[in-house]
Amino acid sequence: MSDTALTSTLIHYQNRSNVQLSRWLDNLGNDKQPLIQAMKHGALLGGKRVRPYLTYVTGKLFGAPEEALDTPAVAVECIHAYSLIHDDLPAMDDDALRRGQPTCHVAYDEAIAILAGDALQTLAFTILAEGDLSAEGNAYRIQMVKELASASGAAGMCLGQALDLAAEGQKVDLAALETIHRHKTGALIRCAVRLGALAAGERGVTYLPELDTFSNTIGLAFQVQDDILDIISDTETLGKPQGSDLEAEKSTYPALLGLEGAKQKAEHLYQEALQALQAIPYNTEQLELFARYIIERKN
Amino acid sequence: MSDTALTSTLIHYQNRSNVQLSRWLDNLGNDKQPLIQAMKHGALLGGKRVRPYLTYVTGKLFGAPEEALDTPAVAVECIHAYSLIHDDLPAMDDDALRRGQPTCHVAYDEAIAILAGDALQTLAFTILAEGDLSAEGNAYRIQMVKELASASGAAGMCLGQALDLAAEGQKVDLAALETIHRHKTGALIRCAVRLGALAAGERGVTYLPELDTFSNTIGLAFQVQDDILDIISDTETLGKPQGSDLEAEKSTYPALLGLEGAKQKAEHLYQEALQALQAIPYNTEQLELFARYIIERKN
Repeated sequence: MSDTALTSTLIHYQNRSNVQLSRWLDNLGNDKQPLIQAMKHGALLGGKRVRPYLTYVTGKLFGAPEEALDTPAVAVECIHAYSLIHDDLPAMDDDALRRGQPTCHVAYDEAIAILAGDALQTLAFTILAEGDLSAEGNAYRIQMVKELASASGAAGMCLGQALDLAAEGQKVDLAALETIHRHKTGALIRCAVRLGALAAGERGVTYLPELDTFSNTIGLAFQVQDDILDIISDTETLGKPQGSDLEAEKSTYPALLGLEGAKQKAEHLYQEALQALQAIPYNTEQLELFARYIIERKN
Repeated sequence: MSDTALTSTLIHYQNRSNVQLSRWLDNLGNDKQPLIQAMKHGALLGGKRVRPYLTYVTGKLFGAPEEALDTPAVAVECIHAYSLIHDDLPAMDDDALRRGQPTCHVAYDEAIAILAGDALQTLAFTILAEGDLSAEGNAYRIQMVKELASASGAAGMCLGQALDLAAEGQKVDLAALETIHRHKTGALIRCAVRLGALAAGERGVTYLPELDTFSNTIGLAFQVQDDILDIISDTETLGKPQGSDLEAEKSTYPALLGLEGAKQKAEHLYQEALQALQAIPYNTEQLELFARYIIERKN
């Protein structure tokens, strides 16, 4: 399978998750309401859909059909979309640009952006509770709610964001930086993979430990590459101001390891991810290709 | 049963829900983290625990034991607590005082307050997914997740808050005001009652329509009384600055109906609530007393 095949699969699942996410958002009605418009702005304008992709390809490798994976895929993406809206707020990262578009509080206002984030989080749980699943997946529906909540809240993503804010302008060592990222971005990536496995039922559940190792390594690699891109990429390619981490005095892998050290770290994590997949006796090629994409991506 | 009996039951469930909520918050660990401290500040410092009370007494009247009701009671309260933290933010109502205490963003900072609200919302779903339920209640666990999400999000509380913000400084008629409150506060009150019924299993589920009528009327009465108290009560009794609605140019029932008209409205809603309860062939005395408390309370 070539890079072109990866790209076309990525685009396929980007489109599929966009359609599904639109459907849920359209079902809310009230399309003249700034709240609903802001939710759509935050959730639908661009985005790589990395998390839905991971849910789809993980579920699929264990035999789940795509229509049994839409529910967890878009639930995870709603959590991600809400977190971006809140992260961009003036009181947080104060970013005006995201995915080449004005951030939610710039396009609307701060109050609506806070509420849009809140309601997107809620929507994630509506989707998990109400959305279609296969019979095998349905047996794990409550487990999925648990996992999504655990990955998102005060033991996962929210804690990571709090740790990240506290680290701003501080000297942070490598262990502390990994703790931040394991929570801030790692927890939800791991959750995306786990929900794909759970939606496939028993077969997927068997390999949760191996999948966790895979997720932990690519989650970290994703962040290392993000830090690298913040230094070497330009604003247009990145869709956000280049060098914004540096400006915010954020601890980054290149700052701690040097640019070359960070690149080696990403490569090492990639190898670890491949190793974890070798224990899974199904076709894990999409996950392998994706791991490489993580460390080679340009935006 | 006397007012004293109502008060002692209220206090009993206040204490019970505080203990239960503390347990979930303590389980998060990380008690030195500002995020966790801010969650506790927002969730544990005061509050009448009206919603947990409603869950407990509703479940109990259908025969559910208290320990089968802790889970939905505190899940609903987490949603309420998160909404207060976010409502108080500078970009929203910009309140410095809540329950006689500094609001979350004053005691900590805005970023932590946003995250604490976010994580309290997530905790609500963790609690519903992981908390103890009776066997009868467990059959409705996913239904409870649906109901809580539906009451909280873009079709419920968040929409109500957005409508409320849009109405600020605008002339709003009675129908529009009711739409605001039906979403902003009514949806979660209705949900608190419904979750109590669901946790009791089949017996409670049978009377969901009557309970909805009860909830809708007391939810509105609660808001009417809130508006009245904002005018007639003093800051110390209220725990927030008296006249703050007037200052924010909010549409209120006294503004639309006059103070006497608002009082009559509350009384009329009270009578409607009692009527709805008459169709339920169990002991609904606690709900009746509570309906009266709603329109007679002083803070």
